[in-house]
Amino acid sequence: MKPITLYSAKGTCALAVQIALLEAGAPHSVVSLDFANQQQRSPEYLAVNPKGRVPALVTEHGILTETPALLLYVAQRFPEARLAPLNDPFALARMQELHSYLASTVHVSHAHGRRGARWAEEASSHADMQRKMPQNMIDGFNVIEQHYLQGPWVLGEAYSVADAYLFTVASWLKSDGVDIALFPKVAAHTQRMLQRPAVQKALA
Amino acid sequence: MKPITLYSAKGTCALAVQIALLEAGAPHSVVSLDFANQQQRSPEYLAVNPKGRVPALVTEHGILTETPALLLYVAQRFPEARLAPLNDPFALARMQELHSYLASTVHVSHAHGRRGARWAEEASSHADMQRKMPQNMIDGFNVIEQHYLQGPWVLGEAYSVADAYLFTVASWLKSDGVDIALFPKVAAHTQRMLQRPAVQKALA
Repeated sequence: MKPITLYSAKGTCALAVQIALLEAGAPHSVVSLDFANQQQRSPEYLAVNPKGRVPALVTEHGILTETPALLLYVAQRFPEARLAPLNDPFALARMQELHSYLASTVHVSHAHGRRGARWAEEASSHADMQRKMPQNMIDGFNVIEQHYLQGPWVLGEAYSVADAYLFTVASWLKSDGVDIALFPKVAAHTQRMLQRPAVQKALA
Repeated sequence: MKPITLYSAKGTCALAVQIALLEAGAPHSVVSLDFANQQQRSPEYLAVNPKGRVPALVTEHGILTETPALLLYVAQRFPEARLAPLNDPFALARMQELHSYLASTVHVSHAHGRRGARWAEEASSHADMQRKMPQNMIDGFNVIEQHYLQGPWVLGEAYSVADAYLFTVASWLKSDGVDIALFPKVAAHTQRMLQRPAVQKALA
């Protein structure tokens, strides 16, 4: 098998994919882009991912993007690692449901704190978005706390790639000005994740 | 098998799930909510989906939400309909990649045209978002036109649930003030979809 290459950047959701690859024992290398110097906009990287975002995963069959797609790919490509309930449509849909909620609601809320220029032009609009962002993060994590964390892991007794994704997005709360202690189950989940060798290696 | 119930509303991405259920030949009923009268915020519906959004799918095992999760669920639950490349990790990831791009980038762009109150408080911010929305839709559909539509269907020769999702989001372009003719492959895909009995039935 040709090794997989993950394009990543510090502080992004690519961390979830890196944790998943480590948990899977997948042969891979990580290329870390320097967002401060706009390396994601370089011609070299746009040839990899025309969207200019991370993560991107270079596989033997081609390049894949979008975190929920990459997480399911890693789980399905390395089934012996048992990182998703691949053959249980309802349980898999519950996993995908959290992935989709994280990607299209919670991550989007977070992005309004620092990347408002994606959706509006005026500085006053960006400041307005920044002010509203912490409450949207609180609302999103309240939904997760109440509905998406069975415990000890997202799907109950079985660890899955969803745990890596939740851990990654929860790690943004501090810089968003939200105290993770508001969400006791999420906070305990983060502590549990920090005990895992794959997580420690990804953060090193 | 107990019939499935889909909670839907006119003009929303629930249409994609309805088309998928019809293509799958799945026994189901559709409950259409009246968004104009805020029926999605009624206590009855919040008991179904605390997020107050559609689609929601009531299955024999429980309730599921989030369009990308529901589309994969329908494909996996009714495998004989062959609505997704379930056993090809790379092809399935490509499908999921488009689903995720539609949900977390294109749908989010669209929502800034009419639901800016999710992310900012001031009327001036909402107007700013509305002005920027059409260009963001154009940018998103340029990516789809160039990268996500192999033709004749999203994944090439094989029709999949991704076609239902792309068709649904493309149907919003007109009300967003964007001419679908800017994207010839997407426009032809829409016409192709309109020939399918399942699409005609869902729109009826």
